[in-house]
Amino acid sequence: MTIQLHCFGESGNCYKAALALQLAGLDWEPVFVDFFNGAARSPEYRAINPMGEAPVLVDGDITLSQSGVIQQYITDKTGRFGGASQAETYEVLRWVLWDNHKFSSQAGMTRFLMNFLPEKHRNADVIEFSKGRLKAAYAVLNAHLEGRDWIVGDGITNADLSCCGYLYYPEPFGFDRADWPHIDAWLTRIAAQPGWKHPYDLMPGRPSDRGL
Amino acid sequence: MTIQLHCFGESGNCYKAALALQLAGLDWEPVFVDFFNGAARSPEYRAINPMGEAPVLVDGDITLSQSGVIQQYITDKTGRFGGASQAETYEVLRWVLWDNHKFSSQAGMTRFLMNFLPEKHRNADVIEFSKGRLKAAYAVLNAHLEGRDWIVGDGITNADLSCCGYLYYPEPFGFDRADWPHIDAWLTRIAAQPGWKHPYDLMPGRPSDRGL
Repeated sequence: MTIQLHCFGESGNCYKAALALQLAGLDWEPVFVDFFNGAARSPEYRAINPMGEAPVLVDGDITLSQSGVIQQYITDKTGRFGGASQAETYEVLRWVLWDNHKFSSQAGMTRFLMNFLPEKHRNADVIEFSKGRLKAAYAVLNAHLEGRDWIVGDGITNADLSCCGYLYYPEPFGFDRADWPHIDAWLTRIAAQPGWKHPYDLMPGRPSDRGL
Repeated sequence: MTIQLHCFGESGNCYKAALALQLAGLDWEPVFVDFFNGAARSPEYRAINPMGEAPVLVDGDITLSQSGVIQQYITDKTGRFGGASQAETYEVLRWVLWDNHKFSSQAGMTRFLMNFLPEKHRNADVIEFSKGRLKAAYAVLNAHLEGRDWIVGDGITNADLSCCGYLYYPEPFGFDRADWPHIDAWLTRIAAQPGWKHPYDLMPGRPSDRGL
């Protein structure tokens, strides 16, 4: 049975799950969530996910949300991306949590505030504060990747698939690959994986659909 | 061998790990991280955790950071708090990730900005924005806890031990238990667990030590 992923192209959190499905070579298809027209707040969608978040994975009787949970499910199903030992498993989880706590959470919000929120609602102080926190996070990731191909161990894991979630998008949010050479090389490495696609090519929905 | 937890009382992230150790009945002791005097940025501490974060657990040869990883380690070691089935395991992880992404991350930062950052550096717009995001998160948690004793299944899990991390602190950050009756009852339930202690009683370090 084809796995369905409820998702939309603009969401880096959706991309984390979609990219894991894609690189694992699973039989899956995206189901468009028209987030910017309020679809995630509809009663139909709330029945799938009461939190109103995307992505949501549906695989037969199983319905899962939170990109990190979907990645863990893919790991349990395929043996991929979870780390090669117990120590690596903890290290992968560490980076997935760090990403959720300090990195993608900030990147996604900052990109939203700078690009998708109507201009009259944008607050320069909030944006600058978020960009400052993000800069500290880029520095942590860039330093960690010096001398390494992957965040954990000798191959791509959910740590990489989580942390890269927002970093291929073209919209400005204070991130320039040229500023962070080890992140830049690592993003090139991920993009060279068989089956890799840019978020706007992997999932339906992009800003130009909304005239942006 | 006694497990050591590098931690400090003001940190809800440290509390999540300390409370899991405590309620699991493990033999552990806190090691004070003098965070507000820069100890987490010292070379000695960076050798334990290059990210400079607390908590860090040391159990013999094993060193782990990120509260969610430490909780998972305690679950693996004791069989406690991880959920009663595979479905519950995913659901616990979902809430731990949600907490890291949307809840404790915001609560910790807002409390820091409102109480521990010198007043001249405080920005009212940033604080209001953070409080607004937190309010949406309280609503999600409060609604989920209506008619439930615990976030997942029939007993206390890492989902509870993660989401409660900042909610017992007295310093203001826009949270009033009286506003959220289901959260309030659940916090009372957690506090009734054998061995439970308030964060300032479980770990060394509290604002009054610094004259606040």
